[in-house]
Amino acid sequence: MTSAELFNQIKAKKSFLCVGLDTDIRKIPRILLDTTDPIFAFNKEIIDASHEFAVAYKPNLAFYESLGVNGWNSLEKTVNYIRYNYPGIFIIADAKRGDIGNTSNLYARAFFDSMDFDAVTVSPYMGEDSVTPFLSYVDKWVVLLALTSNKGADDFQYMTENDEKLFERVLKKSRKWGDENNMMYVVGATRAEMLASIRKIIPDHFILVPGVGAQGGSLEEVVKYGMNKQCGLLVNSSRQIIYAGSEVDFADKARKVAQDIQGKMAELLAPIL
Amino acid sequence: MTSAELFNQIKAKKSFLCVGLDTDIRKIPRILLDTTDPIFAFNKEIIDASHEFAVAYKPNLAFYESLGVNGWNSLEKTVNYIRYNYPGIFIIADAKRGDIGNTSNLYARAFFDSMDFDAVTVSPYMGEDSVTPFLSYVDKWVVLLALTSNKGADDFQYMTENDEKLFERVLKKSRKWGDENNMMYVVGATRAEMLASIRKIIPDHFILVPGVGAQGGSLEEVVKYGMNKQCGLLVNSSRQIIYAGSEVDFADKARKVAQDIQGKMAELLAPIL
Repeated sequence: MTSAELFNQIKAKKSFLCVGLDTDIRKIPRILLDTTDPIFAFNKEIIDASHEFAVAYKPNLAFYESLGVNGWNSLEKTVNYIRYNYPGIFIIADAKRGDIGNTSNLYARAFFDSMDFDAVTVSPYMGEDSVTPFLSYVDKWVVLLALTSNKGADDFQYMTENDEKLFERVLKKSRKWGDENNMMYVVGATRAEMLASIRKIIPDHFILVPGVGAQGGSLEEVVKYGMNKQCGLLVNSSRQIIYAGSEVDFADKARKVAQDIQGKMAELLAPIL
Repeated sequence: MTSAELFNQIKAKKSFLCVGLDTDIRKIPRILLDTTDPIFAFNKEIIDASHEFAVAYKPNLAFYESLGVNGWNSLEKTVNYIRYNYPGIFIIADAKRGDIGNTSNLYARAFFDSMDFDAVTVSPYMGEDSVTPFLSYVDKWVVLLALTSNKGADDFQYMTENDEKLFERVLKKSRKWGDENNMMYVVGATRAEMLASIRKIIPDHFILVPGVGAQGGSLEEVVKYGMNKQCGLLVNSSRQIIYAGSEVDFADKARKVAQDIQGKMAELLAPIL
């Protein structure tokens, strides 16, 4: 998918919502625990309930890996379910991978060949040759960590040399590794005030923004500082949507929260549509 | 396992060899491809052939994930095989994970509960709260990336503020998150000359050293600059050992290379034993 195609989806749905499928076996409704694959059963209902209001889904790999082979199986079924039932939706593997070149090649094979993700999140610590193997796949994306939403972001990401912070160096160096059609960046909503200066470095790239909702970030602030002419934003919400309810009507409740967020997004998109 | 127990293993085997199980379905002997689980069949033979000469095994997750559910299954079988047949061997998940706190918790669950690894490699980019969840498990370890062996290490890891490089800041900050019994660090053998200054920051921690062999690092240099009184080194070799042969005698050839390396290590260990 190109950035223009992603923007077309955003215009069609008046939404730049990404739903984080951080599906925790300990948190899903008990009623699902008797099914053969509770994780997939949960995801399927959440996806069916929210797909009208979302342009992207983002399973976080940790939740699936913690269940071993069964979890990996649920993940593959989830990706296939979205792909075949709701084509055009952007699917991100939130995996935060990155390794030496020949190894990153294998991660790329895992997410882009073995499974049909559109994008994978990658950590920049190991530099260019840990990132570029993912970029050799046509129409696939790297979502590179720049400035994350957690407290620990302060430990290293603001390190400064010659007035340039580490996350700024990550943006400046890596924008040359790919282009606006195969690279986007993670900037946490809890750091929304930094989006203005980040937009000076990457005016045209998409930014994936976690941290709205449970982590306390503001959608309005993110849009104020981060939106560009092609929207340029995917705002993720996980817990706020998928755990909106815990009873038999959990999918209806999730749908309602997703619809509310999409409503706000439609208003915020109006100036550029 | 504590660092003293690890040193006991090193003394008993006169070896600080870690064998990297970077098992690629495209590179293993064709003769194994007809078995029901070629990856596990290969690992089993390599482990049986090399366990006398190795104190640790390190499967790199990318190789298993690239095969989907089957790969994950082979990985679980491999960990169990080592655990039950060769107790006392240290098993590292080379996963280079790291995510916000509640998510790192789930990765820890994956590697320490769902599977029985002793350690997991973690990327430091997201800071303290992405690392500490792994440290809440008794007798389990974080192996934190400090200075990696690849070319891309130059992109960010040497960034300098107030005469402190990023990888030095990683060492200085993170040594307070755990201690010598639950944290070690990755320093590439291709950066062996940096080990002297790194030892000033972390004199007592174990260091996991990749990059000897196929990547060109020197074992003698690593020992010269990096060995401490408790050895303090695990030197990894992957391709050089596991792909020493490609025919029916591949395990014998792997054994011979592992034995050669152990022989060199025994000489290099003599001064501290």
